[in-house]
This record gives sequence, C-alpha cells and structure tokens, in this order.
Amino acid sequence: MVSSHFKEILMRLGLPEDRIEVLEAKGGITEEEFDGIRYLRFKDSARGLRRGTVVFDEANVILGFPHIKRVVSLRAGVMRIFKRTPFYVEEKVDGYNVRVALVSDRVLAITRGGFVCPFTTERILDFVPEEFFKDYPHLVLVGEMAGPESPYLVEGPPYVEEDIRFFLFDIQEKGTGKSLPVQERLKLAEEYGIPHVKVFGLYTVDRIEDLYDLIERLSREGREGVVMKSPDMKRVVKYVTPFANVNDVKIGAKVFFELPPGYFMSRIMRLAFYVAERRIKGERFEELARNLGKALLEPFVESIWDVEQGDEIAEVFRIRVKRIETAYKMVTHFERLGLNIKIEDIEEVGGMWRITFKRAYDEATREIRELIGGRAFVD
Amino acid sequence: MVSSHFKEILMRLGLPEDRIEVLEAKGGITEEEFDGIRYLRFKDSARGLRRGTVVFDEANVILGFPHIKRVVSLRAGVMRIFKRTPFYVEEKVDGYNVRVALVSDRVLAITRGGFVCPFTTERILDFVPEEFFKDYPHLVLVGEMAGPESPYLVEGPPYVEEDIRFFLFDIQEKGTGKSLPVQERLKLAEEYGIPHVKVFGLYTVDRIEDLYDLIERLSREGREGVVMKSPDMKRVVKYVTPFANVNDVKIGAKVFFELPPGYFMSRIMRLAFYVAERRIKGERFEELARNLGKALLEPFVESIWDVEQGDEIAEVFRIRVKRIETAYKMVTHFERLGLNIKIEDIEEVGGMWRITFKRAYDEATREIRELIGGRAFVD
Repeated sequence: MVSSHFKEILMRLGLPEDRIEVLEAKGGITEEEFDGIRYLRFKDSARGLRRGTVVFDEANVILGFPHIKRVVSLRAGVMRIFKRTPFYVEEKVDGYNVRVALVSDRVLAITRGGFVCPFTTERILDFVPEEFFKDYPHLVLVGEMAGPESPYLVEGPPYVEEDIRFFLFDIQEKGTGKSLPVQERLKLAEEYGIPHVKVFGLYTVDRIEDLYDLIERLSREGREGVVMKSPDMKRVVKYVTPFANVNDVKIGAKVFFELPPGYFMSRIMRLAFYVAERRIKGERFEELARNLGKALLEPFVESIWDVEQGDEIAEVFRIRVKRIETAYKMVTHFERLGLNIKIEDIEEVGGMWRITFKRAYDEATREIRELIGGRAFVD
Repeated sequence: MVSSHFKEILMRLGLPEDRIEVLEAKGGITEEEFDGIRYLRFKDSARGLRRGTVVFDEANVILGFPHIKRVVSLRAGVMRIFKRTPFYVEEKVDGYNVRVALVSDRVLAITRGGFVCPFTTERILDFVPEEFFKDYPHLVLVGEMAGPESPYLVEGPPYVEEDIRFFLFDIQEKGTGKSLPVQERLKLAEEYGIPHVKVFGLYTVDRIEDLYDLIERLSREGREGVVMKSPDMKRVVKYVTPFANVNDVKIGAKVFFELPPGYFMSRIMRLAFYVAERRIKGERFEELARNLGKALLEPFVESIWDVEQGDEIAEVFRIRVKRIETAYKMVTHFERLGLNIKIEDIEEVGGMWRITFKRAYDEATREIRELIGGRAFVD
C-alpha cells in the first residue's frame, strides 16, 4: 500500500499517475517505516529511479546503487572500456553495499534493496563523521560494510579482524545519483577522515601486467578483486580474483538448494576465463581444479551428513550493537525478508552487546532430508 | 498444421475437439512425414498420450517413453520403492532412446522426441529381426542405440567398440504403452535373438552391498549406471555411477553456454549424494574432487582457446549408413531441429558409407567470442 502522500511526491518528481498505479499494483513500490520515519522503496526500476531507490520526501530521494558491470577477460575488457586512457583501480571489498545519507537530522544507512538497516544505521556513526553531512547534506556516501561480524554475510575480508568496518567507494548526489569524480571523493574522504577502500592507483592498459600481478596478489591474500573507474566515474567495471570465485562456490555449496544453479555456474565461468587468459597449466591448474571440485563437494557433503544426523542446515552470524533493541529490530527486518532467524546468544563485549543469530535454511534442509530418504524424482 | 484426417483419429481416440484445437494452437501436436508416411507427433502430453507419442493411425499409436525416476541415495531409494521385494537390476546404457515398431509393413525407429529417425530406421533391421514384428505386430521394442558412431551423442559406452548397437530394455503395447513383465521381455529377446541390455540379476535390499559393488565396478569401467525394475515393470528407477556424472560434466563443459546451468548442477548434486552415502574420504575424495574440477574447467578452457584462435566450437559425429540418401535425410532432420550441421566427409567402409558430420555450436562460440573480446555485462 502506498499512501497518497507518497503518490503526490512521485508525481511532483515527474512520474505519471498511471505509471505509479501500475508500479503499486505490481508491488514495484512499497511503503516502509523505520523509527517513525516513513519512506517509499523501489523494488523495481521506474524511469530514472533505479531499483533500490528510496524516497523520503522530494528533497531526499536516494537513488538505487547501479549494478556494476563485470568483465571476465581483463586485458580485453580494459581495452574495450578505457581504451588507452587512465583509470583508477580500487579494491572490491567483500561486504554489503550501503548508502549513507542525512534525512531530517538523522544519518541513515540504506541497504542495496532499499531498506533502512537498523544495525548499520546504529553503527554507521562509529565509522563516518556526522560533520560531513552537516557540510554536505545533499550527498550520499556509498560504501561497503565488511567484517567477520556482519548480519548479512558469513565471511568478511581478511583485513578486517573483528567487528565490522565501513569502506567508502562512491559519493553520489541525492536526487540524481550522480557520482563525484574520483579525485573529489578521495579529497573529501581525506578531509573528513572517512575510511576508504584501498586505491591501488591509476593504471592504463600499458600496465596490464602490473594489474595482473595485483590480481594474483589479492587472490593469494584471500581478497575479492578490483573495481576500475574512469576519473570522472562515467565508466566503472569490476573483475574478481580466482580466490573469490572458488570461495563463493564454497560458501554457496553449504546451502546448495537455496541458490539458483546459475550462482555456481557464473563463478565457474569466471574461473575458466581466468585460466584461459592467464594460460594457467600444469600444477597450478591441477590445484585450481582440485580446489574448485572440493569447494563444490565438501561443504555440500557436510550438509548432507548434518541433515542425516537430524541437524538443520544453518549459519551463525554475530553482530555488535550498542542497544539490544537494535538486535530485535534486525530480527523483525529478517522476518520481513522471509528468513528464519533466531537470536541464540547475547553477551556484553567492551561496553557493547554481541548478539549471535542463527539463520536456518529450511528449503535446503527439507530437500536434502527428502533425497537421503530415497525420494525418486524426474529431472 | 494438423490435418482433419489426424484430428478425426484423435477424436476417435477420445480426445475432445476443443482440447485438440488448443493443443494444435500451442504447437503441442505437429504433423510430420517420413518416406511418404504421415504421422502426428506429440511435443506435449495430452490426457494419457505422453510427450513423444506418435500417431500413425488408430491401430498404430506409439506412446511416448515415460521419464524414469531417479534416486540419488541408493539404499534409501531401493527401500522406499521396492521395500523388501525383489527387483531386476539392468544396465543403463548411454545412448539414445528408440521405439521400434511395425507400421504398414515398415519397421520404423522413433526417437524420444517422437520423430521417425531416418538413420535408425535404416539401420534397425541390422540389429532386430523383422520376424518378431510379424509375430507381434502390436508390440513396440524400446531400447538404446549406443556406440561411438551415433548421430546424436559424441560418446558411446566402452563395450561398443565401433559403429552402433541396439540394446532392448522394454517391450510395450501399442495404444496403451503398457510394458510386458521383465520375464516375458527376456523370453522374447532370447527367442528372437534381440540384443538386450545386460541383466545383472534379481536383487533385494538385503543385497545392497552387492549392488554398491556393482555400481563401483561399472563406474571403474566407464559405464553409466543401472535401472532397477519390479518384475511386473510397475516400479522403475535409475541410479547413475560417479563416472557418468563426471563424464557428463566433461562433455557438457565443452559447449558450456549451450546448456542450462541446471545440467551441471544436477550432476554435481548426484555426485555429492554418492560421496555422502558411500562416506568417500581421503585420497578417493581428493581424486573425485580433482576430476570434477578438471571436468568443469579443462574442456571449457580448451573451447575458449579454440575460439581465441578463430575456430568455432564444434563436435564431429560419424555414422555408418547403407545409402548416402539416409545421410542427407539426417541433415534435413537436424535442420528441422534447428541445429547447424554439415556433412564433412563420406567414405566407403566395408560395403557401407561412413559419413562424418560436423555440428557447430553457434551460441557457445558467439558468447565466448564476445567475452574474450572484453564485453562487460551485468550478472
């Protein structure tokens, strides 16, 4: 249900009335609430309003973060996208995407899907100075929240040892979603002490061998990959390491039946193009193949054995919060998303609360239980 | 287009007129022709007429071969399906399914999809005695055509060294599609000298260890698996070897983009359940994982390198025919199926013609060409 209040805002933003009605009927827009603040969330794109867009009022429209394109052949991709012009290479951090903005005197953190996240909103000012928003109320900080204690991901990058951290990688304007040029973003980050993803420098295709070396090093260090950006932010493209592809497969295989087959095949595809481009052969190829095979089979087989013993397939998440209430809000948020989540434990850690959640994968558990029970099926 | 002649036959077979109209409109039934014989082919099921059903006339309705259910947990599957009653274990031959029947004085071979296959029809009497059909004109021989020289598959089972062979595994009645009991089928096969799939004997769940041993042996020998059947043929279920799962992945990875992601994931899933059930660990597990990883990556990477060098992804098939005309009919048949097939070579071999076809995989080639060219894409 979308109230007439928001419909009028959308019309003033230029969306025709009939388009709004259709969007509402399809469930493409829904009205949400966080701490008494009402907002509209775009589950689908409409006109210039990208999927994940959030509308608080006419002055506070925070556009959905666009999908970054990917290349699987690094050299040819760089050539095709940047030609011989320079581009920034920044670290792709393995976490969850948040947009941070000031809305009626509160700094809110919004997830990719367009929800104000109770956890991230509570914690964001631990990482980002509120001052920035006083000076630039019309800007949105876009970054990755990453670490071993995250409510959405089971793993964090190796360089975050505990809790969670914020890594800025984009600053966009409210209303238009237009990105600041890289240099301006870096300047603001420095000026305000906003933590930033690692910038590996400016490259051109002439330094492709250095870029390959960087990818190999990141892969060895268990890091996810890079995002390459033209200085004006008009062209942005990502490339992930072989480590990340194998690791994604491993994480996914544990909950095999929860994921579409394309989840696994897209990562295997990326690996194959990496092997082809880098001419990986002999012992290094054997090792990669073995790692891929194990990543597919090992966690999956463990899950089958777990279900055999009467356990359910589940994952444990930990987060640190200042107020226990935030943890309960997260449970409500997860329930809203249709997840089966329970709080398992609450303990005090250095003046904060460490909350342990358990997410049960009912579909994967049920499917495995049926199959080990001997169900016969037609492919 | 379906002529009124066939529509009348369908009505006499009990299909209501409006159902026939809907089926025709959806393309669920089409009229086909082979050597002047017209027939109706069911692409979809309708009432009791299974997908793949072929109608020549009221007396010659050859039902589609039903999909055999699969289990991935052998012991539990056997228990659930056969309880403690005995079941036949027969070899699952890796080839293509054909139904062979006498229709107006000609013995025709029909593929799974419901086409009269020009190649198989020409060759079938090399393997099956015509006499059988004189005595049993109302019966359909169902079997697998398998060997290294097959028009539909790149590989055959290890026990067919050259050309192709027929292996009977079912005898069904025209009109009803009802199977003869196993014993009757075996008796008829023996009496008429019809080659039959290997019958490993009668098992019960008490002999499950022997069945596991059989699966292990078949896997070591590069064989596909088993089909288990109650003596009355009312319950039928299949189980494939780890070899076959890895081998399917390997064959598929060469033409990666032609196949749905589920093709690969279903085989990986079967492997995981095999590993879990048989408690495969240590060196045997490592070997299986390595084989799986290599099966996914190696042929795929080879294909990428082929396309890089300007080649197209293609497979070569060979068949032996008596009349060159048959080869041209096969080309027409493949074109009808939308495949890109060319005859590459024709040579005489022992009074027959050996035809070499090349099948080009345009979609896979184009996709790889784009990706090695650096195309950026959104997942």
